[in-house]
Amino acid sequence: MEIKSYIESISKKAKDESFSLRSLNSDVKNKALISISKKLDEMRESIKEANKEDYERGKEKRLSKAFLDRLLLNDKRIDGMINSLKEIASFEDPVGEVVGVKRPQGFVLEKVRIPIGVIAVIFESRPNVTIDAAALCLKSGNAVILRGGSDAIESGKLLNSVIKEGLREVGIDPEVVQYVERTEHEGVNWLVRQNGLIDLVIPRGGESLIKSVVEAATVPVIKHYKGVCHLFVDASADFNMALDMVENAKTQRPAVCNAIETLLVHSSIAGEFLPLIQNRLENVELRGCEITRSILKNIKEATEDDYYAEYLDLILAVKVVDTVEEAVKHIEKYGSHHTDGIITGSVENMEYFANNVDSAVVTINASTRLSDGGVFGLGAEIGISTDKLHARGPMGLRELTTYKWVVRGSGHLRIL
Amino acid sequence: MEIKSYIESISKKAKDESFSLRSLNSDVKNKALISISKKLDEMRESIKEANKEDYERGKEKRLSKAFLDRLLLNDKRIDGMINSLKEIASFEDPVGEVVGVKRPQGFVLEKVRIPIGVIAVIFESRPNVTIDAAALCLKSGNAVILRGGSDAIESGKLLNSVIKEGLREVGIDPEVVQYVERTEHEGVNWLVRQNGLIDLVIPRGGESLIKSVVEAATVPVIKHYKGVCHLFVDASADFNMALDMVENAKTQRPAVCNAIETLLVHSSIAGEFLPLIQNRLENVELRGCEITRSILKNIKEATEDDYYAEYLDLILAVKVVDTVEEAVKHIEKYGSHHTDGIITGSVENMEYFANNVDSAVVTINASTRLSDGGVFGLGAEIGISTDKLHARGPMGLRELTTYKWVVRGSGHLRIL
Repeated sequence: MEIKSYIESISKKAKDESFSLRSLNSDVKNKALISISKKLDEMRESIKEANKEDYERGKEKRLSKAFLDRLLLNDKRIDGMINSLKEIASFEDPVGEVVGVKRPQGFVLEKVRIPIGVIAVIFESRPNVTIDAAALCLKSGNAVILRGGSDAIESGKLLNSVIKEGLREVGIDPEVVQYVERTEHEGVNWLVRQNGLIDLVIPRGGESLIKSVVEAATVPVIKHYKGVCHLFVDASADFNMALDMVENAKTQRPAVCNAIETLLVHSSIAGEFLPLIQNRLENVELRGCEITRSILKNIKEATEDDYYAEYLDLILAVKVVDTVEEAVKHIEKYGSHHTDGIITGSVENMEYFANNVDSAVVTINASTRLSDGGVFGLGAEIGISTDKLHARGPMGLRELTTYKWVVRGSGHLRIL
Repeated sequence: MEIKSYIESISKKAKDESFSLRSLNSDVKNKALISISKKLDEMRESIKEANKEDYERGKEKRLSKAFLDRLLLNDKRIDGMINSLKEIASFEDPVGEVVGVKRPQGFVLEKVRIPIGVIAVIFESRPNVTIDAAALCLKSGNAVILRGGSDAIESGKLLNSVIKEGLREVGIDPEVVQYVERTEHEGVNWLVRQNGLIDLVIPRGGESLIKSVVEAATVPVIKHYKGVCHLFVDASADFNMALDMVENAKTQRPAVCNAIETLLVHSSIAGEFLPLIQNRLENVELRGCEITRSILKNIKEATEDDYYAEYLDLILAVKVVDTVEEAVKHIEKYGSHHTDGIITGSVENMEYFANNVDSAVVTINASTRLSDGGVFGLGAEIGISTDKLHARGPMGLRELTTYKWVVRGSGHLRIL
């Protein structure tokens, strides 16, 4: 079959299935999630085998350490997927919630939460996203089309069949989840142009993935773009707080999007603070601006490319700035509007920073790593939106729904 | 200047202005709106003159009656714009509203409403949209780029200078409103690709406008698409209610998007109801399906094209269906997901219709003409979104904002 027809047929199936999902009972959806979690446990060994195929192929292709780390499925990560399914089953079903009721001009006006319809999730070679995305879409009543990275194709295909078995067992048509098994890149371009069949495209990944999706798409897109996150250590920062926080934001889990990539330090404290942070971040490679390198003699230069980089690794760009305004300007120019923070004792500067940094999440005296759907109490997240529309920042079950207005009258007409 | 550079320079100006608008005081914004309303009143005669130029040119081009009606600015419509400005000034400012506060894990988490940034509104030759769109964007703290239809260019340019005078008078930089004075269609294509400068594109208009915007756009788009709205008169409908409602939905203001274009009638009542509705809709041209024409002898055939048509005129397609399911299927196939209604005495059928018609607004025993931001109590609307994301149905001031998360900690770190 031509790739175009293949994508169209998948999209049509998803669209057809979306009608039955709209009014599917919460209990049945939760049972399906638990059933999938059991299948995952049962199929553990085959999953690891399929993943090993991907992993070995990736090693031969000399994919980066960070890439291989995200690709890997071990027992701990399979447990993670199982727990995630159970957790999603335990969350409240957002569908059907009446968000608002009014009685304008005598009739009843309801704003009701409903599924979006069909969602296409396009992601890189992180096999656990297969399960998370399917589970979140199912729970929110959406049919889903999964298009994972080609380097995780064997893991993805197996996880897809696990999902389908779980669905079948509770009597849900397994076609509510569609997995794109063909890896031609052209398939993505067809996928994002299925207006009328697909309602939303969520690309999760790096710059090139996002750019190619945005360029090709005619279906609405919510981007889950890279996290070039910053911490700005202001002149009045508490040094101990700043040291702990920079360490936490950089090293607690460097391969994720809410870890920081650039540290901005106020010039009035740079001479004192920079040696302390170098000492604290023993395992981190620092790359500095000119002033930083005049204080820390033995480090590499931070280039323009460094300031734009999402290292996802134990590397940190360091730049000295003279004012909070300069910090905000740097973030506006180089950041990805994901999560950026200030460490300061100045109320004026925290408010300036919070108002003027145009990012989904702004942290004040708190780690950027807290920018997370789970931590925010939104439940599991399908990702962190770096877009401004519909959903911004951590995107959970509610953000996978839309609403409809229902006017209930008894013969009400428009007079004026 | 090349059109590409012209559009870029406009977009850059708007982006620069958006920063100052973010924190502009509500009072100043309201004063600006009132100031614009006064200028409109003062400039009334010149506005009508400029509009006359457009109107005469339109008549020469033999534009349709409905088109010319939307193009026309008379005293009544200028009064309408003045009132709209006063009304928008009186609404609550959505910016800065703290939508939610939580204390997960000890830190304070705020979800704060903020302007979207820069909005480009692309519309057809309806000059009053110039004022409405500028006013709504200003009030919601957004810089706006207006691109009106080329057939209303003289009216648009003059209204733009009226807006700018009003802004200048209260000390707001008039550049917060940008009007695209060049009418090359290519300009629209450049406009909708200004990622990083423009945050949202709102196209309002017919199929060809929307399609060309969606095809070209890389900036997010919320479509304000045509209204192919339906009323379904079910077997158990109250005839008097149905007659009043069909008349209201079709004739009260036929040139607007929430007027109905197709009437669906249950087969069991068609023989009795159709002659009554024909009698009631004396001034309306009916076009019918085969069964309809076997009952009403003297009417034209409704073709496939008729079922897809947004007449915006005193024409109504009529189709007889056997079940509520068939009515829903017809609406799914031919409708524009705008506003569709059922007239019925059956609770079962009203719930089936409300759950299964995938439109922004579903009316039950109420006129589709009620689908309106003003009627819904949302305040003035920038239009009616036929999209599913961010805003669905009537889109008011709140829907012109987004949100940002602010984490306020005192050294909070991510532990797990």
